[in-house]
Amino acid sequence: MHGAGTSPYADAFALAAAQVKNAIDATIELGGSGYVFWGGREGYETLLNTDMGFELDNLARLLKMAVKYGRDKGFKGDFYIEPKPKEPTKHQYDYDTASVLAFLRKYDLDKDFKLNIEANHATLVGHTFQHELQVARINGVFGSVDANEGDMLLGWDTDKFPTNVYDATFGMLEILKAGGFTNGGINFDAKVRRASFTPEDIALSYIAGMDTFALGLIKASKIIEDGRIDEFVEKRYSSYESGIGEKILKEEISFEELEEYVLDKKDFNIESGSQEYLESIINSILFN
Amino acid sequence: MHGAGTSPYADAFALAAAQVKNAIDATIELGGSGYVFWGGREGYETLLNTDMGFELDNLARLLKMAVKYGRDKGFKGDFYIEPKPKEPTKHQYDYDTASVLAFLRKYDLDKDFKLNIEANHATLVGHTFQHELQVARINGVFGSVDANEGDMLLGWDTDKFPTNVYDATFGMLEILKAGGFTNGGINFDAKVRRASFTPEDIALSYIAGMDTFALGLIKASKIIEDGRIDEFVEKRYSSYESGIGEKILKEEISFEELEEYVLDKKDFNIESGSQEYLESIINSILFN
Amino acid sequence: MHGAGTSPYADAFALAAAQVKNAIDATIELGGSGYVFWGGREGYETLLNTDMGFELDNLARLLKMAVKYGRDKGFKGDFYIEPKPKEPTKHQYDYDTASVLAFLRKYDLDKDFKLNIEANHATLVGHTFQHELQVARINGVFGSVDANEGDMLLGWDTDKFPTNVYDATFGMLEILKAGGFTNGGINFDAKVRRASFTPEDIALSYIAGMDTFALGLIKASKIIEDGRIDEFVEKRYSSYESGIGEKILKEEISFEELEEYVLDKKDFNIESGSQEYLESIINSILFN
Amino acid sequence: MHGAGTSPYADAFALAAAQVKNAIDATIELGGSGYVFWGGREGYETLLNTDMGFELDNLARLLKMAVKYGRDKGFKGDFYIEPKPKEPTKHQYDYDTASVLAFLRKYDLDKDFKLNIEANHATLVGHTFQHELQVARINGVFGSVDANEGDMLLGWDTDKFPTNVYDATFGMLEILKAGGFTNGGINFDAKVRRASFTPEDIALSYIAGMDTFALGLIKASKIIEDGRIDEFVEKRYSSYESGIGEKILKEEISFEELEEYVLDKKDFNIESGSQEYLESIINSILFN
Repeated sequence: MHGAGTSPYADAFALAAAQVKNAIDATIELGGSGYVFWGGREGYETLLNTDMGFELDNLARLLKMAVKYGRDKGFKGDFYIEPKPKEPTKHQYDYDTASVLAFLRKYDLDKDFKLNIEANHATLVGHTFQHELQVARINGVFGSVDANEGDMLLGWDTDKFPTNVYDATFGMLEILKAGGFTNGGINFDAKVRRASFTPEDIALSYIAGMDTFALGLIKASKIIEDGRIDEFVEKRYSSYESGIGEKILKEEISFEELEEYVLDKKDFNIESGSQEYLESIINSILFN
Repeated sequence: MHGAGTSPYADAFALAAAQVKNAIDATIELGGSGYVFWGGREGYETLLNTDMGFELDNLARLLKMAVKYGRDKGFKGDFYIEPKPKEPTKHQYDYDTASVLAFLRKYDLDKDFKLNIEANHATLVGHTFQHELQVARINGVFGSVDANEGDMLLGWDTDKFPTNVYDATFGMLEILKAGGFTNGGINFDAKVRRASFTPEDIALSYIAGMDTFALGLIKASKIIEDGRIDEFVEKRYSSYESGIGEKILKEEISFEELEEYVLDKKDFNIESGSQEYLESIINSILFN
Repeated sequence: MHGAGTSPYADAFALAAAQVKNAIDATIELGGSGYVFWGGREGYETLLNTDMGFELDNLARLLKMAVKYGRDKGFKGDFYIEPKPKEPTKHQYDYDTASVLAFLRKYDLDKDFKLNIEANHATLVGHTFQHELQVARINGVFGSVDANEGDMLLGWDTDKFPTNVYDATFGMLEILKAGGFTNGGINFDAKVRRASFTPEDIALSYIAGMDTFALGLIKASKIIEDGRIDEFVEKRYSSYESGIGEKILKEEISFEELEEYVLDKKDFNIESGSQEYLESIINSILFN
Repeated sequence: MHGAGTSPYADAFALAAAQVKNAIDATIELGGSGYVFWGGREGYETLLNTDMGFELDNLARLLKMAVKYGRDKGFKGDFYIEPKPKEPTKHQYDYDTASVLAFLRKYDLDKDFKLNIEANHATLVGHTFQHELQVARINGVFGSVDANEGDMLLGWDTDKFPTNVYDATFGMLEILKAGGFTNGGINFDAKVRRASFTPEDIALSYIAGMDTFALGLIKASKIIEDGRIDEFVEKRYSSYESGIGEKILKEEISFEELEEYVLDKKDFNIESGSQEYLESIINSILFN
């Protein structure tokens, strides 16, 4: 089953290293401000022939070498990992933002990498585009965006030009809350549909995508200006600003004291999550 | 929209803390060796009313208090988190093993928790049961198992009694490779189907589940004894035992040297992944 | 395993018949104009205990009796079947509109039934709401609508109040093209989210749903008025209005003649499907 | 947007007709006993540019011409339609067996066509392989089989060589119950995995597939011989053999009489569906 005397897997590592080295050289030469590792090859087709632990250790080694090489050569931009759960392989290690964070933290790489979030890769996992952006943001690894759109009823990466204004708005909302881009940006990782084969289609598709994200930015900024959504969220957690809540946040309270508080308290209130009301606010801003 | 002067969310924390405290007390009293946090409540229904970062910080606070309380009271067993991606809520923070690892590592909780892997929760994410077990194993957090079976064509947690011998075999294979259980075990988180309402059905269902896992254990042990699968995997990565491969593992080589190696090398080999052959081996062991 | 001397399955048929009889009586008494058979019980949990052919024959018998009974009693309204693919059972016979049509046509029931299309049931199959409405329309069985919204990332019937204006617009477009409602209408088969538990939430949710469909109606009507979409489609098939196309439609041409036509023809044109352009038109109408 | 003076869509019909004509000629010349229409092109990418009713009418016209041409030329074999729900297009008209039946019955083509069921296309819809085969069987259109295997966690047509013995067994069970093949057969519509690139892999993959279906046939035949499953199903519906059940089957009873029967009856029995027990029987036969 195997050739003897050869070292195919170690050679694959060496080939990958050589390729990445040259791509980093080119990035520096061209004044690039970001270097993206796309998550579409490292992964497995079946666990029957795979040692996942070994492969992940090796992936970490490659990334460490890449960072060292790049920094030694003076690259000041960001290194990005782009999560993708599957396709072409059955399972890819950069499954989603959380998986990448688990990996980066295990190998002490979390200071060296940011994430390049692709909308269609998010939905392939089962997350919204906004979810992936928010996970990146709250963990300090938001970096860049591959803008496109999946078909929620299809199970592959369609890489459609984005035209859904809801998704673009929620995406831009996260990007604004992340403080916008530093080294990254919005890149259309999109292709025209099979039946859109004319040069005109290509122009119209980019226009459609740009218009969608431009409108998303306008609407996201209006949502923030409007203030009702943010105010609702702030108020929702306001019970942590004083009293028992404040003690919890400051970690100045124990299980015993919390039990005592509960036993002493006469009545408890709950508050509505008001999802339908909040969705109405969004529609009132989007369609006005 | 809100009641004033109340502290509903901080109170929810306090109530949860009191409940967990009492459940830990009961666990200690009963000589329990494990305490499972089930991932079916912490999460969100919509990002419109949610501050994910705030909620995750709070979740970490609760877990830290729980660990401190339990250890102070002399609990020597394992704390477990049971990943579940959704249902009842839209998104649950303990999405899968990798997400839980990202969380535990962020808050320095990775030494305190192991994972309780449920088969049906794995497939709800898009992972196999074996995948989740292997991710837990290679990260040193394998703990316990909720045995059941999902229907791969249904999008909810069916909690069916497990009767698929393939899945049970691959699951037991991972458990054996993890060195078996320490404090954990196999718990049937399963219920009879709606139309199986007789006492006889309950007995037959548990028998079916136990027979399935018992057969899975026998077959997993035969796969290891047979040796062909393990030998294939070992050989697959054997190029890392010497030469360039060894240098990579020892991290004694740089991008520059790897490029040089590649440029000097005359020809490269690749080896088959042999998936179909390996699947045949499995069938030859299962059906013999 | 079985009780003897009883007739549980035939009794279930009798009980169902008695229930449907009484519900039809009540419908007539109340001046109802529609009677819906909801597709959530007839189906199977496993093929191991099921004779699908037998069950479908029986279902047809029940529906025939229902039609006969209702018409004899003077019911002039519509009978509806509401497709649903699964949940609670693994597979339901009224899977989608096409499955229902196959069934109705087999048993000569297609003149007696129309369809009640539910948005969330459509997406549970893997269809859009618009798709199901159009399949019903072009087959002359469009009847009524259960308005709600699924979560495209969740695999169960969420019955959310509809707030997505795209979906409402495309749905209303089909309803307008079907000539609007006759006996049917739009019914909110929706419930507030778990965390929306106040009376205010219920009012706000219905308002949100009604506003969404009202806006959908306005936008759908503007799409028709605008004319660009309809014109594009008409032009796309205009080659069937004369020449070879006309002969095809009139079925006045054979394979031999079509081959001859092809062999004689010098060059062939193809035309763009222009999807991105058409999606831009929709956005320009929706967000204006 | 459009070329003028051309007839692209009618020409596409003519080109398709010419191709099908020549393929039928070749089939006859080669003594072929079956002609399969594969469902991977007729469908739509977006409803924005599509008139589904028009396209389905045209598809029926093409199929009618094909049947007429083939029969006139003396082709005595079967015409098959192979359902596939999507990929490459978003929605394909031959979605599943039920959709094809709805179509064939609408256009009076149900006497002329049988179905070629592909395992992976079944699971892409959300059906099991066995389900699709049984729907074909009970509607008298079972014809032929494309044997392969999908990955239940991936959303595209993987066309994997089949190695799951459960699926092969349940598939062969349906084929045996359909009386086996007449003009059709089992065709491996499968390809080796990307990493299985050697000639040896191709041989081993076909062996794996054939062994799987051969074992499936042996096991299916043992299930029938064993008799417990069939006996259970027969007994489950046995209440239709006499009394009220017999009257229902003979359609000699009305809603009024059924209500009277229900009101007179003292108590009702229900019987267990015994799914777990039946699954145990299957395992006891498969792993013995």
